[in-house]
Amino acid sequence: MSFKTTATIASFGGKLLKLTHQASTVDCEMALNLYLPPQASSTQHKVPVLFYLSGLTCTSDNCAEKGFFQHGARGLKIEGQDDAYDFGTGAGFYINATQAPWSSNYKMESYITNELPSALFSSFPELDSSRVSITGHSMGGHGALTLFLKNPGMYKSVSAFAPIANPSKCPWGEKAFKGYLGEDKEAWKKHDATELIAGWKGGFDCLIDVGTGDNFYKQNQLLPENFAEAAKASGNDKGLVLRYQDGYDHSYYFISTFATDHVNHAAKHLFA
Amino acid sequence: MSFKTTATIASFGGKLLKLTHQASTVDCEMALNLYLPPQASSTQHKVPVLFYLSGLTCTSDNCAEKGFFQHGARGLKIEGQDDAYDFGTGAGFYINATQAPWSSNYKMESYITNELPSALFSSFPELDSSRVSITGHSMGGHGALTLFLKNPGMYKSVSAFAPIANPSKCPWGEKAFKGYLGEDKEAWKKHDATELIAGWKGGFDCLIDVGTGDNFYKQNQLLPENFAEAAKASGNDKGLVLRYQDGYDHSYYFISTFATDHVNHAAKHLFA
Repeated sequence: MSFKTTATIASFGGKLLKLTHQASTVDCEMALNLYLPPQASSTQHKVPVLFYLSGLTCTSDNCAEKGFFQHGARGLKIEGQDDAYDFGTGAGFYINATQAPWSSNYKMESYITNELPSALFSSFPELDSSRVSITGHSMGGHGALTLFLKNPGMYKSVSAFAPIANPSKCPWGEKAFKGYLGEDKEAWKKHDATELIAGWKGGFDCLIDVGTGDNFYKQNQLLPENFAEAAKASGNDKGLVLRYQDGYDHSYYFISTFATDHVNHAAKHLFA
Repeated sequence: MSFKTTATIASFGGKLLKLTHQASTVDCEMALNLYLPPQASSTQHKVPVLFYLSGLTCTSDNCAEKGFFQHGARGLKIEGQDDAYDFGTGAGFYINATQAPWSSNYKMESYITNELPSALFSSFPELDSSRVSITGHSMGGHGALTLFLKNPGMYKSVSAFAPIANPSKCPWGEKAFKGYLGEDKEAWKKHDATELIAGWKGGFDCLIDVGTGDNFYKQNQLLPENFAEAAKASGNDKGLVLRYQDGYDHSYYFISTFATDHVNHAAKHLFA
């Protein structure tokens, strides 16, 4: 279905569009933000896209208002940035649920990798469908890492802020995977970034930031060490830049501080 | 009274402190944010201060989360940035009320120019009390302009985002001034930036941004043209940079886009 533009907001020289559409994959109305930087209207060339996947409970507005990705998109010539959306209860974990009653609507993986990009690229011809990167925060960082690793070639690069990096082993992930995927822990592995990196053979160049003052990190919900260890065991550690940022928490103060670094990381690959 | 630090949040290499204190001027508890950039702890020198006065209804969190001032404070070596606070009903207009029942508590002018800086400079020795600038948004832009013009020498520079620039002539200002100051319109003039600039003899170097898509601008609540005209008539127009930003609204998307310019403007004077 085509998009309805509910607001057009000037921001950092470009336009932030608040969009909604009726999505068939998840059978409900979805909301997202699309930032079109100044280059999108001033050039003949299509602009690449950076998908941003939100964390637990966040709607499409949190990152647009507080994340300051637009600033980097302008200054660094990265040009499309999508903010994510609200997943019903805000906790879809970017997978396709197999268990009733979730399996009829909780198909966020198909929505993000298939329906949403198709809809965007057909509605916004200024976006370059051949140059797409992905990033995300917390649950969205899990989404970014797993969708990158599950779909070789689909994204030019990946990065993450405080990702849930080993969901099979943390309380948030265990609850979600049990509910959406059932009790069989073998089925969980293909949705767990730590399990996926263990078998990854493609090129890998990934930036991850985690704050040492992040309470969820301290509570072992994120487990970036497990991801790093699995990357090392599979020979992918040379492509992993995992930075522990002293004293930073889990909030948008943390994300906004390092947003430009993640836009730079994506730009390196989108303009390679 | 001394400050209570309710939160310390890492942001752009420095620390954002959420502070509260019992303020005697206004006889209530006041909340504000103080951003201490990295230089505040890594240098022997005291750092200058930029006060930010919020607009109608905004609390101390709006600008800290959405305003993107911390970025400029870091990158440009401006080092103290104060966010404002919630004025009871969020509409104190940065004046001392003379009419009952407001006159006992609505003394925001004294609070901002006297009690708050005294409390900050005694509690935070890393702040340089001899280098202070002021800026603000909407009602806070009115506050910044009038406090600068009423207190020659107190602030090194002034700037404003979408200020209520001639409150005596707009619905918001008329309602507030009638309530706080009474019916005598002569008494209003000393709290109206357009009246004050008409008689201003000091140096003047002021940056003002207004979005052309700002509904309050269109509804004649802001009246920057009147301010510009009065500045011209009094020979102060050479020091006024009034920019109409195409398509921008009244929101934090507007403020964040131009925040770095306003930090730069203050830096020019604070480091002169």
